[in-house]
Amino acid sequence: ARPRVGYFYTGKTGAQLLTEKIGKLTVKNYQSIPVVVNESASVYDAICTMFLEDVGTLFVVNRTSHLVGILSRKDLLRASMGKQDLESMPVNIIMTRMPNITTCEPTDLLLDVAQILITKQIDGLPVVNFKETDGETKMEVVGRVTKTSITKAFVDIANNKIV
Amino acid sequence: ARPRVGYFYTGKTGAQLLTEKIGKLTVKNYQSIPVVVNESASVYDAICTMFLEDVGTLFVVNRTSHLVGILSRKDLLRASMGKQDLESMPVNIIMTRMPNITTCEPTDLLLDVAQILITKQIDGLPVVNFKETDGETKMEVVGRVTKTSITKAFVDIANNKIV
Repeated sequence: ARPRVGYFYTGKTGAQLLTEKIGKLTVKNYQSIPVVVNESASVYDAICTMFLEDVGTLFVVNRTSHLVGILSRKDLLRASMGKQDLESMPVNIIMTRMPNITTCEPTDLLLDVAQILITKQIDGLPVVNFKETDGETKMEVVGRVTKTSITKAFVDIANNKIV
Repeated sequence: ARPRVGYFYTGKTGAQLLTEKIGKLTVKNYQSIPVVVNESASVYDAICTMFLEDVGTLFVVNRTSHLVGILSRKDLLRASMGKQDLESMPVNIIMTRMPNITTCEPTDLLLDVAQILITKQIDGLPVVNFKETDGETKMEVVGRVTKTSITKAFVDIANNKIV
């Protein structure tokens, strides 16, 4: 297509257009596949999973596949420095659990997530759907959104791949 | 200042303005302070430094303070899983070394770095100045640019903080 040049009416400055464009990106456009481990898995298994799947954050789920914890590379590194036996230590001893888990939903703005990642100094968030079961709110993990996702969005915007 | 509204001539579409704006950001605008360890330091010391400084990547320097290697959180995690004694293992056994180190310079475009981080699946690059000493090219580490730096730039663009 030929570039549109000349006078045109927008009522907006370039900067406003930019802000708007970024403000339209949602988590579901950039989320990747979540990598989960069961809460009964050992720290050793979790480290192996992290290497095999090449991710920086693992989500811990219970028997009904609902989110109960998060394991960062830092959590696993800290555990592996100790003198304990990693194969007999379950992940639920070292994982971050509620209410200290920050989550997001597929319809959340990518920009809001980016701001949370910076402010809370974390690498990634689980993308969840909330479900009401037996009067309790459960979280079903449907994705993973990280600084890598944001970096991809940054490249896409610069390369004009976002309409 | 009041927003500029109405007809204005740019010869450019909003998307082009966006691309241009991002294309002007250089590494030096977003780099952070590098965290280095000496090549004779132990893996144990490196892990402690990583926790204390709260970074994901350490740069390894020699006696003359030139870059000789890189240690990712993953490298340290892999080492700490083994049965070896971390306090007696020097970092130069496990570090990534030249020619496998990707570097960038302060004047490089942030966009190019973002693309390298995605393509090579790495978390951060050392920002270096090249120096000719005794006919050899040495690298002086002056900064660190990571997916966190890119995420900050993304937020700044969206919030219209970039002129």
